[in-house]
Amino acid sequence: MLKKLLIANRGEIAVRIIRACRELGINTVAIYSEADRYALHTQMADEAICVGGPSSKDSYLNMANILSACVLTQCEGIHPGFGFLSENPKFAKMCKECNIKFIGPDYEVIELMGDKARAREIMKKSNIPVVPGYEGEINSYTDALEIANNIGFPVMIKAAAGGGGKGIRIVRDTSEFKYNYEAAKLESKSCFGEDKVYIEKYIEKPRHIEFQILADEFGNIVHLGERECSLQRNNQKVLEEAPSSFLDDKLRNEMGKVAIRAAKAVNYKNAGTIEFLVDKNGEFYFMEMNTRIQVEHPITEMITNIDIVKEQLKIASGIKLEFTQEDINISGHAIECRINAEDPKNNFRPCPGVISELYVPSGLGVRVDSAIFCGYEIPPYYDSMIGKLITYGDNRENAIIKMKRALAEFAIGGVTTNIDFQYEILEHKDFINGDYNTSFIEEKLVNNNA
Amino acid sequence: MLKKLLIANRGEIAVRIIRACRELGINTVAIYSEADRYALHTQMADEAICVGGPSSKDSYLNMANILSACVLTQCEGIHPGFGFLSENPKFAKMCKECNIKFIGPDYEVIELMGDKARAREIMKKSNIPVVPGYEGEINSYTDALEIANNIGFPVMIKAAAGGGGKGIRIVRDTSEFKYNYEAAKLESKSCFGEDKVYIEKYIEKPRHIEFQILADEFGNIVHLGERECSLQRNNQKVLEEAPSSFLDDKLRNEMGKVAIRAAKAVNYKNAGTIEFLVDKNGEFYFMEMNTRIQVEHPITEMITNIDIVKEQLKIASGIKLEFTQEDINISGHAIECRINAEDPKNNFRPCPGVISELYVPSGLGVRVDSAIFCGYEIPPYYDSMIGKLITYGDNRENAIIKMKRALAEFAIGGVTTNIDFQYEILEHKDFINGDYNTSFIEEKLVNNNA
Repeated sequence: MLKKLLIANRGEIAVRIIRACRELGINTVAIYSEADRYALHTQMADEAICVGGPSSKDSYLNMANILSACVLTQCEGIHPGFGFLSENPKFAKMCKECNIKFIGPDYEVIELMGDKARAREIMKKSNIPVVPGYEGEINSYTDALEIANNIGFPVMIKAAAGGGGKGIRIVRDTSEFKYNYEAAKLESKSCFGEDKVYIEKYIEKPRHIEFQILADEFGNIVHLGERECSLQRNNQKVLEEAPSSFLDDKLRNEMGKVAIRAAKAVNYKNAGTIEFLVDKNGEFYFMEMNTRIQVEHPITEMITNIDIVKEQLKIASGIKLEFTQEDINISGHAIECRINAEDPKNNFRPCPGVISELYVPSGLGVRVDSAIFCGYEIPPYYDSMIGKLITYGDNRENAIIKMKRALAEFAIGGVTTNIDFQYEILEHKDFINGDYNTSFIEEKLVNNNA
Repeated sequence: MLKKLLIANRGEIAVRIIRACRELGINTVAIYSEADRYALHTQMADEAICVGGPSSKDSYLNMANILSACVLTQCEGIHPGFGFLSENPKFAKMCKECNIKFIGPDYEVIELMGDKARAREIMKKSNIPVVPGYEGEINSYTDALEIANNIGFPVMIKAAAGGGGKGIRIVRDTSEFKYNYEAAKLESKSCFGEDKVYIEKYIEKPRHIEFQILADEFGNIVHLGERECSLQRNNQKVLEEAPSSFLDDKLRNEMGKVAIRAAKAVNYKNAGTIEFLVDKNGEFYFMEMNTRIQVEHPITEMITNIDIVKEQLKIASGIKLEFTQEDINISGHAIECRINAEDPKNNFRPCPGVISELYVPSGLGVRVDSAIFCGYEIPPYYDSMIGKLITYGDNRENAIIKMKRALAEFAIGGVTTNIDFQYEILEHKDFINGDYNTSFIEEKLVNNNA
């Protein structure tokens, strides 16, 4: 087992990783920006080292400083969490060159999966269904328009290097195409440093359903079932649940097998997620693979009782998976609400500030992954997610009841949050009926709020 | 289902009951003493009503005021929690006379089980093994001494109306008998208002193992397995775990059956606990039945995924148990550490005060039942227990690892607590080996601390 690990992240996921390390007897080194000097992850780790100024670029994305910190503190590995450097193949490669174990797949796989067009290509070759689209080089606007016409509108233009909903444009007919094509390229350039885009069929109001994969370094791969992540706003997930009430066992098994095949196709190692779009007829398409731990991993942990972060660390330590697909027992239902410091009544504007009062819910079937405490100042530099509230019930109805109870208990003073907004989702009849897709929030809730 | 409930308690158990009510759609009325005006249970309930001054006698034991509050707020039932009026047959009877549903068994059963000598008698009649002893009337010191000599020293003198470790004397030979007999009677008189005592064989260094019972109003009775409660100080439980590593399946099944027989013998209804003493040879003896929810109920909830407080409320609402003994599936291992505001280095002196800083642990398999928050002032009038930290693992080793991680995270500023003391227990090799009995803490830890 690894003896000492650097955690190249902040906030709740850094705390989450520290917890897993504690339970495995791994010493931890936190990195922090100048804005995070008093943050929980900084306080909680065995050691903490400042890697730069408040902006992410200067600190949590500062590869040279992070690698120096790792060498300086004699860490054997780096856990990148999610966001920041977690899907940066260059960073993973630098780790390898420094003989530091990067907790994730090989950098070549990160690179491959990060290039959405190449990922599609390899999946197609492995007979994984992908959304109809074009993965070749697009050399000009004229090319692009012809491709779009061949696929048939509506189409989606996506940054090849994209992620997190950035650089995505939906185009419904020819007249809107030019403007959106150029805008997508510009956005891609500014977000990801390159303007390569690809074009695919736009699936109307799909479900976003993803499968959690665990793969050890000996070729053993299992999936831990799916997560229903259709509740999104601006392509950012808001509330996730597992299992998905949309899948029946037949479709679930089929998708699970495809997910494993997808992971095998790239010789995947460590934890990963295969994201699918599922249309209203149950046709599913590989969308992308996330080569890191996901924000919403806790709901899978609740229904499988498998600690995914610990599994990541064990796999990276060269330990074989201790279970096979048959051993994995999914029971009950879990929901996660992302708690953001933002104002839903004001276009979800981020609301950093000092938490002046705090009561965190608890009790049977309630879990909170967060890095907040009373007196904590939420800095304005990073993502507005300050915690995740997770509930478990023996069925979906009871998980919802528990979530409503827990949200009602959750008291955060001093900053505006989306807690009431989450409650609204849970009370909506379409949500209660499980009748929703990726358009739900913007169609049914946000417009009503405006 | 009951529509509105008064909670005749305070602290974490009041919060626990409010949570169960929320999840069942029951409106709640809290009662509070003048010292608890800003307590969490007061804030959290739908309504709250002050029933008297800070001392328990004036408020949480003030039957007239509590019943008035119940009538005034039109509650249909009262949940007494544990301690206070929870095992007071007079109060349960008054509830019945006022047509208020008391959440617990009939007052006659509370009365019967509250009289330890009568309880022994009825258990003996049902072939439940009891500790050899004398349950008849003891009229004089001479009688008592003869009884003790017949049983054989060491003997235990116990207040017939006792509970919570009060009024108990262990006597090792004749020379010590007179003093202890009189002391026990005096203590019983002052604690319980009557000086009736009984005498039984003192089992040396036993295990204290109890079975959780659920019984509906239609004669269906199940047990939810056992809890190992041997870690005690001054007859007060400190750390509990479930299952007990001392029992094998054969003994577990046998004791479970006896526990159900004991509950049937008194036509028991609602949740209750059969406490057994188990000697080193695995001989077990009925000790007493607690006719209320126990402090340590969460560990059973964690390994069965059955919400015992909700079951209490459903049973009291006249709903049949929805599971049989065969449906109850015990899996994994759970531990509870009672978190007390007390100073283990100073004879466990209670340490009330203001909580100036607080970080409550969380994450997969961690549950905290408490009523504390940052800025909360722990009043000096009540029990020093301020919360319960509960962890769950797929086996005992992992539950211990998780508890150590969670205890290390738990940060309470401004008051002294027993968190470090709990950590010491978890690190002791005898605890790790499951090799302990009711003498463990005083023999292995407290004396070393002094």
